[in-house]
Amino acid sequence: MASADYGRRLSETRRRMNVVGLDGLLVSNPSNRRYLTGFTPRDGDITETSGWVLVTPQSLGLVAGPFFFPGLEHEIAASGAEVLLADGKLFSDLVAERAVADGVRSLGFEQEWLSYFRYDHLKKKLPETITLTPSDDLIQHVRAVKDAGEIEQLRRAADVGDRAFRELLTRIRVGMTEREVASTLEQIMKDLGAEGPSFPTIVGAGPGSALPHWEPTNRDLRAGEPILIDFGVIVDGYCSDSTRTFCIGAPDAQLVEIYAAVRSAQDATVTALRSGVRRGRDVDAAARKTLEDAGYGDKFIHGLGHGIGLAVHELPRMGRLRINSPEMDAELAKVEQVEDDAVVTNEPGVYLAGWGGVRLEDMLLVTKDGVEVLTERNPEQILSLPVR
Amino acid sequence: MASADYGRRLSETRRRMNVVGLDGLLVSNPSNRRYLTGFTPRDGDITETSGWVLVTPQSLGLVAGPFFFPGLEHEIAASGAEVLLADGKLFSDLVAERAVADGVRSLGFEQEWLSYFRYDHLKKKLPETITLTPSDDLIQHVRAVKDAGEIEQLRRAADVGDRAFRELLTRIRVGMTEREVASTLEQIMKDLGAEGPSFPTIVGAGPGSALPHWEPTNRDLRAGEPILIDFGVIVDGYCSDSTRTFCIGAPDAQLVEIYAAVRSAQDATVTALRSGVRRGRDVDAAARKTLEDAGYGDKFIHGLGHGIGLAVHELPRMGRLRINSPEMDAELAKVEQVEDDAVVTNEPGVYLAGWGGVRLEDMLLVTKDGVEVLTERNPEQILSLPVR
Repeated sequence: MASADYGRRLSETRRRMNVVGLDGLLVSNPSNRRYLTGFTPRDGDITETSGWVLVTPQSLGLVAGPFFFPGLEHEIAASGAEVLLADGKLFSDLVAERAVADGVRSLGFEQEWLSYFRYDHLKKKLPETITLTPSDDLIQHVRAVKDAGEIEQLRRAADVGDRAFRELLTRIRVGMTEREVASTLEQIMKDLGAEGPSFPTIVGAGPGSALPHWEPTNRDLRAGEPILIDFGVIVDGYCSDSTRTFCIGAPDAQLVEIYAAVRSAQDATVTALRSGVRRGRDVDAAARKTLEDAGYGDKFIHGLGHGIGLAVHELPRMGRLRINSPEMDAELAKVEQVEDDAVVTNEPGVYLAGWGGVRLEDMLLVTKDGVEVLTERNPEQILSLPVR
Repeated sequence: MASADYGRRLSETRRRMNVVGLDGLLVSNPSNRRYLTGFTPRDGDITETSGWVLVTPQSLGLVAGPFFFPGLEHEIAASGAEVLLADGKLFSDLVAERAVADGVRSLGFEQEWLSYFRYDHLKKKLPETITLTPSDDLIQHVRAVKDAGEIEQLRRAADVGDRAFRELLTRIRVGMTEREVASTLEQIMKDLGAEGPSFPTIVGAGPGSALPHWEPTNRDLRAGEPILIDFGVIVDGYCSDSTRTFCIGAPDAQLVEIYAAVRSAQDATVTALRSGVRRGRDVDAAARKTLEDAGYGDKFIHGLGHGIGLAVHELPRMGRLRINSPEMDAELAKVEQVEDDAVVTNEPGVYLAGWGGVRLEDMLLVTKDGVEVLTERNPEQILSLPVR
């Protein structure tokens, strides 16, 4: 297996720090933490963190508590990170000490990934010589370009997801509930070696498929209606994300037509990316136009896709600008560039309230030479399983 | 089923706002959001929120995006919350508008539950007449006292957890891996009607049981060693949390002795609470003394327990003061009162690196009349399953 390129990750992070005038960066985004150090523990909610990373020009430190160390030194060995053990000390004390020792003057922090409380607490610990500076999530931009090891990991995750879905198809029956289907699929994922689902599995049957964020209910699966399953796996920390829409028994004419329209929108995404369109909103617009032409423009109520890697939602963003202001425009512009070696989802959808919806989602690897679909594609015509 | 007492929840929240001088409170803690309104969607990470609640003396508003509405109005009907739909608007714009309309002057926010970025963004949206004020999580104190409906829900969650574990015991075998055991247990939970686990199930066999936050590995279960399983379910939004330690085949003398010591520490917790000890650190000290007297004081490396409800970790805290400073002392004092109608975990443990650990955890309902154990207790002597 190609190994993680920790050297590039750290040097690219330092380069971006330098560009924005930071000589220290406190990393609290758990995916960034893992990306720089290899440290795998997951956090609870925003009030519970299992570690922070401090990057300076001289050092890479992982601040962590004694709950996780000793025992995980092997995880971070390859990154060269030094453990700053918070045994009887607060994380903020250790950060302040190291920042002072390294002569930091402008200490950035990831402003979307630190609570106001922790920000305020840390600020009080720092001497006046150090300015605590709100920063964008710089490392998410580094992560938007996958290294060879990551592409291999994402390939494996996509493959495990595909195999899990194929196995599910052999077990699915009219009369099963949405919840039973979700639970069965998540069990299959684990049997195939996944750590678990990369997000709570969405199963919508009939009307439930019309809500993009539907949570599975006790509604049973019926013949002829759209069945939408949006699912992903985590394999060794890397996520997959796919959506399949199919039916059991013969689909009605409307379902056949909508499926075809959404499938064409997926093709339009690939065509746009292959032809060099690399601004997320423009890729979204290419797919959206297909659905507008088919008369479903106003039924595609979300963005086209997103980057994927250690987190299920990463950069780049491929979406439209829902709130039209220069401020929002500038925000979007910062996060929507589809670079070479990006991995993104391609997930157009059409939703008719009360009837149902069709969403199809694949994972795409975008390179300078073209576009490769990492997942198995949804078939050209809607899959119709025999009624059993 | 006893229904949620939304009236008390809101009036008690407003009373606490009044005490600290707030005439508006922005609620971003997802459990608090559900507690006040009944709105069930879960959030992704800290950067992804499915809704905010704004409480003023005149109104209770739920700010949510069109991804979730329409379709969930029934969830919030009983609470009387008004939906402020962020369709084409930002959450922060809606909050600012309503705060102005209600004449708010000091708008509190939950400082542990809002990122610096969102704080800063909201601050810029507010007129100068409104002060954005960092606040503690006031509602967590309201939630620390369970209403009748919640106690019933927690009883059900504890019962589903117990039944899941009993079923697991019929399937567990020497040679299964930690991961297979965790996966089997999580599948049983769902088969019994749970939404899922309330946290990732911990299964530690032998040395793995010595790390309190162990993640299951492919290590197989062996006869005679401690097997530690820490697990919980979510049933209709409410969490359970239990830990069982047992073995397959005959335990050795050390395991028998440590188990007995930990079991005695659990008894000491109940005795202390029954006798009226209600400060978390004092309850912790009572259990800890039992382990100190048995010679294992330095091997009990975490706090005794925590409140549980909509979240798996709630108030009150029952722990020791690891960092001894007047500041930390004052912080702990605010969050450790065990009120009547609190539900808390009782989870002492002893951990010997390289050998293994024993942790036993029950859920306790504390009322003015005494203490009731909601979960099935760990047996007095360590459970030894036959080798199969």
